[in-house]
Amino acid sequence: MRADGRLHRLQEELQEQKLDAILIGHLPNIRYLCGFSGSAALLLVSGREIEFFTDGRYTVQAREEVMGARIRIQKGRSAFATLLEWLNGRSRIKRLGIEAAYMTVADRELLAKRVGRTMKIVNAPPLIERMRMVKSPEEIARIRAACELGTGLLETVTAALKPGRTESQVAGQLELAARSSGADQMAFTTIIAGGRRSALPHGRASRAPIPSRGFVVCDFGVILSGYCSDMTRTLHVGRPSTVARRVYEAVREAQQGALEAVRPGKTVGEVDAAARKLLQKRGLGKYFTHSTGHGLGLEIHEAPRVAAGQMEILRPGMVITVEPGAYLPGKFGVRIEDTVVVTETSCEILTKCPKGMVSV
Amino acid sequence: MRADGRLHRLQEELQEQKLDAILIGHLPNIRYLCGFSGSAALLLVSGREIEFFTDGRYTVQAREEVMGARIRIQKGRSAFATLLEWLNGRSRIKRLGIEAAYMTVADRELLAKRVGRTMKIVNAPPLIERMRMVKSPEEIARIRAACELGTGLLETVTAALKPGRTESQVAGQLELAARSSGADQMAFTTIIAGGRRSALPHGRASRAPIPSRGFVVCDFGVILSGYCSDMTRTLHVGRPSTVARRVYEAVREAQQGALEAVRPGKTVGEVDAAARKLLQKRGLGKYFTHSTGHGLGLEIHEAPRVAAGQMEILRPGMVITVEPGAYLPGKFGVRIEDTVVVTETSCEILTKCPKGMVSV
Repeated sequence: MRADGRLHRLQEELQEQKLDAILIGHLPNIRYLCGFSGSAALLLVSGREIEFFTDGRYTVQAREEVMGARIRIQKGRSAFATLLEWLNGRSRIKRLGIEAAYMTVADRELLAKRVGRTMKIVNAPPLIERMRMVKSPEEIARIRAACELGTGLLETVTAALKPGRTESQVAGQLELAARSSGADQMAFTTIIAGGRRSALPHGRASRAPIPSRGFVVCDFGVILSGYCSDMTRTLHVGRPSTVARRVYEAVREAQQGALEAVRPGKTVGEVDAAARKLLQKRGLGKYFTHSTGHGLGLEIHEAPRVAAGQMEILRPGMVITVEPGAYLPGKFGVRIEDTVVVTETSCEILTKCPKGMVSV
Repeated sequence: MRADGRLHRLQEELQEQKLDAILIGHLPNIRYLCGFSGSAALLLVSGREIEFFTDGRYTVQAREEVMGARIRIQKGRSAFATLLEWLNGRSRIKRLGIEAAYMTVADRELLAKRVGRTMKIVNAPPLIERMRMVKSPEEIARIRAACELGTGLLETVTAALKPGRTESQVAGQLELAARSSGADQMAFTTIIAGGRRSALPHGRASRAPIPSRGFVVCDFGVILSGYCSDMTRTLHVGRPSTVARRVYEAVREAQQGALEAVRPGKTVGEVDAAARKLLQKRGLGKYFTHSTGHGLGLEIHEAPRVAAGQMEILRPGMVITVEPGAYLPGKFGVRIEDTVVVTETSCEILTKCPKGMVSV
């Protein structure tokens, strides 16, 4: 990761925003800027200083991973305590930006207590989130590799889907295959939701048995070299009913329509509208109870939100999911999801595998 | 879960704290109070109202899970947006408590903008965290069941530890066995850290191969019916060196000493001191770079922190981990961890399995 270029860009942004420094606590932002992948850290970037704070558990890991920043660890102290001490007396910092979307009220109060007399604490705009929204070729290559690995797991899922097994066992098989293929870990809690549970958009794999007849929503992703994949396929066990077929085809059509709306210059709201309109036409509008997608990269959910009314304009290099669904409470649900990268003219699907109705 | 009693106790606490209402956003607190296990919700509790807010994805799940609260969902709106609208005009609420340790600066500003003229927003003490610290017999039964399931997985790990396999594959085998035994999911990212990586206290299972000779730190836990288990055993592949044996025995002795310090009336700081003193006596004090343990329940880390200087007094029904370690950078590390429940006179180990040095 060429973290140095990113830190330099951030320093330029600070000047434009008239901030003397920014305090970064959101771990994916820290990883993006300096490479650290642990679970406790803070990064302070000013025009002339780049300081990384963590605690004693991460002495070795910080030395191995952190690029472009000075590492500060104090024995027996949290990253935040070490930072507060360091900040004390940094009289050059008059305006200190914070990440208001991530910092807690309690931490802000501690910070203000320590430096509020000498520094003005201001909410910084989402500078790093904006940088992260458009991926570099290297990042796209990593997401592509994660998606290839993720897509390859569908075979394992299909083979594991046997009536009587639990959803959780199917998820376990999938996750073992992911690890055997080299995934760092899963990108989120695996969703395997069968029968009536397929109507729960977030139906994490449970102890419920795979039904002998009905849909099974399979939504899973891996992390590979830090980057996420995300894909949903809805498989059918046994012979699908006419209604099941009809709903499946409507969702598929909506997903196809939304994919066609993904191109530079369009807003993410237009992508959402494309899916929604097609489901409404089939009388399923009210059963599409979530937004159409989300950005993804170092995090499974990141900017932009692909939702109704969102005005973010698609640009080449953005990576988003396109995942409309229809959920008939108490009956069944269907979702079809791909991860795509915006190209110069349209988009490329990174989760390349068939989407026709499959009965197992 | 007898959530009603908890909500009632919280309402009594509000009176004592002179709060008209409290806004709860921390999901484990929400689950504790009303049973909801989804990923987006808010709960507002006043003397007379108990209102639960979520979004359209959770319509079915909220109806199935939420007890003792009125469910409010508005189509196409986030839980927070629905809450803000509901709060508007609730003139009876003059002092509104928030969870300062969890609410973000951005959300607090949105809240203040909407209701700041009519309500005083104050940081509530950690009322629910305090309630959660002492577990009910039913909660202890659940943690006990999670720990039994978790402990049973050590056999799978031991069998899977073969030189040449990756740490990640071992973790995958472990996780499949967990799911097959009925676990909801893992309680945290599984740590399988072999050879030199065992010196990383938080060495998540990676693509590194299991060494042909050396320690492997195995730290894992499951969630069963919402409650966590946590256990670490450090196994040795091949014949251990004299130094390896010496460090192992020192950590084991420190863990035993800390366990003996766990009893009602002692402070958690004394438990930490017991482990630390024993490691110092063996010249390993500076290699014990983290605290001795943490509370656990609905969350893998919750109050109390078992750390140097912490004054929380142990009471029957508290559940904590006891997990000293020694990490020799660039060489190897050892950690031994149990989950224990404080009894009337001492403590009971819930992760019952041998701790002698094991070579595989």
